[in-house]
Amino acid sequence: MAKQPKNAISPTRAEDFPEWYQQVIKAADMAENSESRGCMVIKPWGYALWENIQQQLDKRFKQTGHQNAYFPLLIPLSHLEKEAEHAEGFATECAVVTHHRLEAEKQDDGSTKMIPSGKLTEPYVIRPTSETIIGSAFSRWTNSYRDLPLLINQWANVMRWEMRTRLFLRTAEFLWQEGHTAHETKEEAIAETKLIHDIYTEFLTNNLAIPVIPGEKSEVERFPGADRTFTIEAMVQDKKAIQTGTSHFLGQNFSKAQDISFTGRDNTIQHAWTTSWGVSTRLIGTLIMAHSDDDGLICPPRVAPQQIIIIPVTPKEDSREAIIDACEALATTLRHKDFHGEPLRVHVDKRDLAGGAKKWEWVKKGAPIRIEIGPRDLESRKICMQRRDEDAFEKHFMPKETFLRDCIDTLQQIQNEILHRATELRDTNISECGDLTEFERHWSTSDQPGWLTTPWDASNEEEEALSKKYKIAIRCLPLDQQDGEDAQCIKTGQPTKKRAIWARSY
Amino acid sequence: MAKQPKNAISPTRAEDFPEWYQQVIKAADMAENSESRGCMVIKPWGYALWENIQQQLDKRFKQTGHQNAYFPLLIPLSHLEKEAEHAEGFATECAVVTHHRLEAEKQDDGSTKMIPSGKLTEPYVIRPTSETIIGSAFSRWTNSYRDLPLLINQWANVMRWEMRTRLFLRTAEFLWQEGHTAHETKEEAIAETKLIHDIYTEFLTNNLAIPVIPGEKSEVERFPGADRTFTIEAMVQDKKAIQTGTSHFLGQNFSKAQDISFTGRDNTIQHAWTTSWGVSTRLIGTLIMAHSDDDGLICPPRVAPQQIIIIPVTPKEDSREAIIDACEALATTLRHKDFHGEPLRVHVDKRDLAGGAKKWEWVKKGAPIRIEIGPRDLESRKICMQRRDEDAFEKHFMPKETFLRDCIDTLQQIQNEILHRATELRDTNISECGDLTEFERHWSTSDQPGWLTTPWDASNEEEEALSKKYKIAIRCLPLDQQDGEDAQCIKTGQPTKKRAIWARSY
Repeated sequence: MAKQPKNAISPTRAEDFPEWYQQVIKAADMAENSESRGCMVIKPWGYALWENIQQQLDKRFKQTGHQNAYFPLLIPLSHLEKEAEHAEGFATECAVVTHHRLEAEKQDDGSTKMIPSGKLTEPYVIRPTSETIIGSAFSRWTNSYRDLPLLINQWANVMRWEMRTRLFLRTAEFLWQEGHTAHETKEEAIAETKLIHDIYTEFLTNNLAIPVIPGEKSEVERFPGADRTFTIEAMVQDKKAIQTGTSHFLGQNFSKAQDISFTGRDNTIQHAWTTSWGVSTRLIGTLIMAHSDDDGLICPPRVAPQQIIIIPVTPKEDSREAIIDACEALATTLRHKDFHGEPLRVHVDKRDLAGGAKKWEWVKKGAPIRIEIGPRDLESRKICMQRRDEDAFEKHFMPKETFLRDCIDTLQQIQNEILHRATELRDTNISECGDLTEFERHWSTSDQPGWLTTPWDASNEEEEALSKKYKIAIRCLPLDQQDGEDAQCIKTGQPTKKRAIWARSY
Repeated sequence: MAKQPKNAISPTRAEDFPEWYQQVIKAADMAENSESRGCMVIKPWGYALWENIQQQLDKRFKQTGHQNAYFPLLIPLSHLEKEAEHAEGFATECAVVTHHRLEAEKQDDGSTKMIPSGKLTEPYVIRPTSETIIGSAFSRWTNSYRDLPLLINQWANVMRWEMRTRLFLRTAEFLWQEGHTAHETKEEAIAETKLIHDIYTEFLTNNLAIPVIPGEKSEVERFPGADRTFTIEAMVQDKKAIQTGTSHFLGQNFSKAQDISFTGRDNTIQHAWTTSWGVSTRLIGTLIMAHSDDDGLICPPRVAPQQIIIIPVTPKEDSREAIIDACEALATTLRHKDFHGEPLRVHVDKRDLAGGAKKWEWVKKGAPIRIEIGPRDLESRKICMQRRDEDAFEKHFMPKETFLRDCIDTLQQIQNEILHRATELRDTNISECGDLTEFERHWSTSDQPGWLTTPWDASNEEEEALSKKYKIAIRCLPLDQQDGEDAQCIKTGQPTKKRAIWARSY
């Protein structure tokens, strides 16, 4: 059988990467745009992926002592104003609620038009993030050092009125978790910020198969109101960077603005040290851009909505029922198996549809393993297995028992292979650069330039000038490279131990 | 030891039921009001209860073929206008977004004020419910009868600008699930409406220990835009009714307004038949009012955030470590046990706090079982068990092995006892009434009148007149009493087989 790929997605990655991305989402039936400007509809296949991400992260948060809670969607303007830098950081993208009712107005053509009415004395914004409203609750909850630490997480929707949106990666409304914690000491708060940064790094690497670079943001790129921002940066297949999760050490900035104070062990009144951290549905966009190919989505098994798809092949009516029974029985056995502490997610596709159409649907949806069982397989107790990380025409025939014995290993192999490819992509596309001329040439000579690591110790203004000139940014100061050999900063020429990673980004 | 209850909550239920309710929530640390008008903060103990409700319901929805998805928070006004009755039903309580940015305005005193800016050409409302926005997606997704049924559920926040709010029971923002389905035939859609109504009834009875009355709403009380509304009605301890869940058969009203049409088996273009259904954080308020006592919350074991609390009693420093180790070991053993398919939720309270203070905190939080282990218990391998459904001073001493053997049974006994009490309350406070004079006297002579079942076949106007006069409503036409003996309608005197249940309500 021919080995050339079918390229179920048009255009291919090489032809038009951004359009390929939209077409993968469409082909996998994950999400679509809605009539509400910049807001997406997350369809079942996309949402199930989000549910898996949620559950797996939530478990990690709870294991490290965090509790979930829920805070108001609407933030009074006066709250937002309390932390000026923060307010200004989000001001240009806030949806503002100004009225609390509608009045029906009959039109000349007999139709009804609804007019905003009941003007509010104080408008609200829909939360773009919840530091201010949660800080205000923390202020009520914190009286003594005994009330600390507060370790709270919220799963919620937030809204930022972005001018240009792109499904999953940048939408006006998105889903996320936002952790907010308050601590007695600076050291504890920094340790919390780093703990979460480590959890994010581990989760993206092991579960999403995205080998992120963990690092700290430069002052220019920090979260509005934070003292330090830690980030995990992913490289996707067009070599752009995506910031996939951030963990902020907020110092006492918000606790002073919102009076999160407590009586300390020494009986003095002190301000708490706070942190905040979050990941969002952006993870899904990153996963798509990192792993998928010209046949559609490739979904890492650990978060795949369905890990194994069983397709009954029923050319003849007389063997149809026996084949479907065999498929269902196999599914039931598989669902009792366990992959990383979760029962296997297995689906039997019994729809009345041609086998080829079914197969390609699951290829495009990125299901890690597809199994076919037909009349001859039934007799021979064999199955035909196909792997999404392999060519779509590659087939493995094996006794059912062999598959049952090996399937967990196979899923882990697929997971590892996906991570391996993403790691290779990343490592072959980050280079070191010690010279400004070479640095400037790099960004001008390629449509999809890789990332550059440079010695960097120059000013914010110099960082901003270079960033603007080449449409790049310092993605992070990678954690493991801040204390090496002295080298000359590419801008100032002064010796520095610090390294910065530069890239274009989404 | 004295048997009289401590009455940890002041006022008691008898003294002031509504205020008692607020105080239970405060004592159990479940939720609080926020500075955002009518919006609550759901604190960890309240949110964990919601998470259990979510997971247990979500499992039932998925087992019956429903899939989760997510739709936009903001609904364009033009969408809402499409179904006029629906729009008018929600018009007076819609939060309206009119601007999409803020501008900082420096004040004379040096402070910054944020002013709404960037006026939208078309305003949005924050979803009060999502029939219109989901219907618009269904319209895109439905081409052929092969695309049906669509069985979709969404977990989300919604907003209704209520004038008077009460934690959990009526808040401007609340959390809920809203199911939306589209079907090929009327019969299938009605079957779906009833399936969900049955799931709700079973879940409230078995898991929340709330013996709801399932029934159908009268035309007056129907959801705006529905052809039929099925409801489950709960009685709480002041004998008021709470509508805890509804399932609507929407006929073709929304599918015609939003063009959810498809090519049928006969090749004609047809409109789909749709349903919607939901339960919300209101369930938590109902649970509190149904079960709690003058010592605080009583939480049914199946949804309790923690089912067993283990309190180490450590009067002497030298046995402290051994006692805490024994508590942790017991917790670990218990967490491997299974109650209704979920691992037991067990917490060891190791805080440095007096034993009495700890005990009363868990009484007020409604934890079903409390265990104490002290120095003497350690030697004798005994434990002291207390049950939340019993007097707070009742103690059961038993060998640890006996407790381990029986604890699942004990939890189920507590669950059954809570349901039993609520069922008794309900059954002793619903009476039949066949006479209008008696009916009218009933509502005038008691502060907390029970429910009345009457033969009823009168007009909407007559129903509304009686409802208004006595601040009551027909809660439902109970499903199992619509086809019995003929009796005279209390208003018209005409013979009817129909029965209506009347009550005051939250």
